[in-house]
Amino acid sequence: MFSVLATDSQSSARLGRMDLAHGTVETPIFMPVGTQGSVKTLHPREVEELGAQIILGNTYHLWLRPGHELVRDFGGLHKFTTWDKPILTDSGGFQVWSLAKLRKITEEGVRFNNHLDGSKMLLTPELSMEIQASLGSDIAMLFDECPPYPCDKDYAAKSLALTTRWARRCKAWTEKHQPRSGDGVQRHFGIVQGSIYADLREQSARELVDIGFDGYAVGGVSVGEPEEEMFRAIENAVPFLPHDKPRYAMGLGTPPQILEMIARGVDMFDCVMPTRVARHGMAFTLDGPIQIKNKVHERDERPLCETSPPHVAPFSRAYLRHLFRAGEILALRLLSYHNLHFYLRLVAGARQAIAAGNFLAFKDSFIRRYTQTDPT
Amino acid sequence: MFSVLATDSQSSARLGRMDLAHGTVETPIFMPVGTQGSVKTLHPREVEELGAQIILGNTYHLWLRPGHELVRDFGGLHKFTTWDKPILTDSGGFQVWSLAKLRKITEEGVRFNNHLDGSKMLLTPELSMEIQASLGSDIAMLFDECPPYPCDKDYAAKSLALTTRWARRCKAWTEKHQPRSGDGVQRHFGIVQGSIYADLREQSARELVDIGFDGYAVGGVSVGEPEEEMFRAIENAVPFLPHDKPRYAMGLGTPPQILEMIARGVDMFDCVMPTRVARHGMAFTLDGPIQIKNKVHERDERPLCETSPPHVAPFSRAYLRHLFRAGEILALRLLSYHNLHFYLRLVAGARQAIAAGNFLAFKDSFIRRYTQTDPT
Repeated sequence: MFSVLATDSQSSARLGRMDLAHGTVETPIFMPVGTQGSVKTLHPREVEELGAQIILGNTYHLWLRPGHELVRDFGGLHKFTTWDKPILTDSGGFQVWSLAKLRKITEEGVRFNNHLDGSKMLLTPELSMEIQASLGSDIAMLFDECPPYPCDKDYAAKSLALTTRWARRCKAWTEKHQPRSGDGVQRHFGIVQGSIYADLREQSARELVDIGFDGYAVGGVSVGEPEEEMFRAIENAVPFLPHDKPRYAMGLGTPPQILEMIARGVDMFDCVMPTRVARHGMAFTLDGPIQIKNKVHERDERPLCETSPPHVAPFSRAYLRHLFRAGEILALRLLSYHNLHFYLRLVAGARQAIAAGNFLAFKDSFIRRYTQTDPT
Repeated sequence: MFSVLATDSQSSARLGRMDLAHGTVETPIFMPVGTQGSVKTLHPREVEELGAQIILGNTYHLWLRPGHELVRDFGGLHKFTTWDKPILTDSGGFQVWSLAKLRKITEEGVRFNNHLDGSKMLLTPELSMEIQASLGSDIAMLFDECPPYPCDKDYAAKSLALTTRWARRCKAWTEKHQPRSGDGVQRHFGIVQGSIYADLREQSARELVDIGFDGYAVGGVSVGEPEEEMFRAIENAVPFLPHDKPRYAMGLGTPPQILEMIARGVDMFDCVMPTRVARHGMAFTLDGPIQIKNKVHERDERPLCETSPPHVAPFSRAYLRHLFRAGEILALRLLSYHNLHFYLRLVAGARQAIAAGNFLAFKDSFIRRYTQTDPT
């Protein structure tokens, strides 16, 4: 299912290929986020045009609305949304942690009041896998507990032990059930926890590898910790993950962070940042992010960036600024498209550089230019 | 500039061609509204793909933001927005009437506080023409006073007299000035007023024709009057307008109303309805409008309408309903696209029927199906 095609001699970066039910994914890859069955503001054909190879769907959101049974009855998330390339679904655990109210964690699972109408709900490892099987995603994530930051070691250790016991229950469920929709082939990724504690990260990785999954994610990052802790969490987990399985850093990050994590051996990324900041007027450029609403762009005839794709390049910064100030939806679309293009071009550049044997030079040159100018 | 290619033997419908600076427009035509330099939610390439031949821009909005001098300095509204087919701009009069606060009408023009920051502003006939010249539209509308409904005859007569005096001042300005941007050729349309009074409509039409313009609009309709008054306003004006000039009914209407007005000899239409109601979940179908948020569509696998274009047809009503309930922008895009396609297909069908000599049959058959079922 996953092959490493090349490894970088100066870093842990690797070039890979992942064969999934709905197609092949080249790694390192960035996965645009389609939380509720839509990559925000974009048409599925535009997401294809951008060269996205795999997108993410959120189990928690789709479970609540429109409901996984409805999606299953429509033939799965691919058919329901008309996206026929690979989809990864998360477990719902992170959203229960970040969105739901009155959360109560027990051995059984998590009881909470949902964020839409406050209804009491219970999400268990088995139910998370069942929902994901109904959605028919290509990759399902295991249901984990995501401890907050900061988190004392005692809590982190107990949480990690629970995550491992839940991982065994998830595995047991998937061995007894087939996905209810999609093409009947679903891969399952475990999630390494352990907060900022190196020995707990190692323990978590070893326990999950012992159970055996198709890939491994590093979770519990991007929860408010400093950047160096985030890198350390990756460094503390990667050495204990098998070389021949894909590695996924969940919910990250800025363009420089993505390159730094590729250098540390990570293959897969997802992040709402490119589309979320786009809706607030921020666009990524090779010279760092810009805020298009700023007055400095009032009469700027240039496009957002020299790398802007044909869908965005014809528009001046002045016009984009006008659209934002006027509250026009086209502004949100164009910046979302541009930012996803920027991210997908970044990982494509990383793949090319790994293949050419000059990844570190590529990374350093990108980061130098990206960070040397003041954002406007 | 305008040629009547065919006239219907059973009604006043006519097929025409209008040659403008940025291209040729076939009539009867519907003009999508791009109030602030963007047809709401859509990319200019999508508006082209829809087959739109001419769009509308709002002078009042563009004057306030980003400002007509800025647009002029960018080479006009076409270059600023990347739309290179014809554009019609209104005079700003209607928006001053409907949006601005503390309006005071004098011989000079209209003083008001704008709706964005309350600044005191003055719009005169000369300034309206100057703004439109700066925007570089293909067709500029004359600055008029739009009386409310209901309106007593004394007020309507005084208002109409003012509109005629303003029309002379507009004409005088355009004879002394060239458009500041665009391709240097701008056409000017007068606006027939006179409220619900047949003799005033006739007087207004005669006075404007006497001054002489490139086309004539019927204004002061769709201001809250009953539908029969709207048709009567058209019927009271059309007989006094020259056969060889285009006729434009401003700000209208529903699909059946558009066909009824084509039958009464109108050539051009604009309306925010298709895009505005789209953003509230209403889609036009051959069986009448539907509200996509309704529960009846929860598990409906059908597309919005058998006429849906490829951009929209792959999506089930169930998926569109889900997107709306989830607040996804893609929902607004898809319904806006669908509704504009419906309107543009409607006027294309009318043109074809006039050419084929069966317009009334086309109109009656469309309206019968459109109105015979209950909307859901």
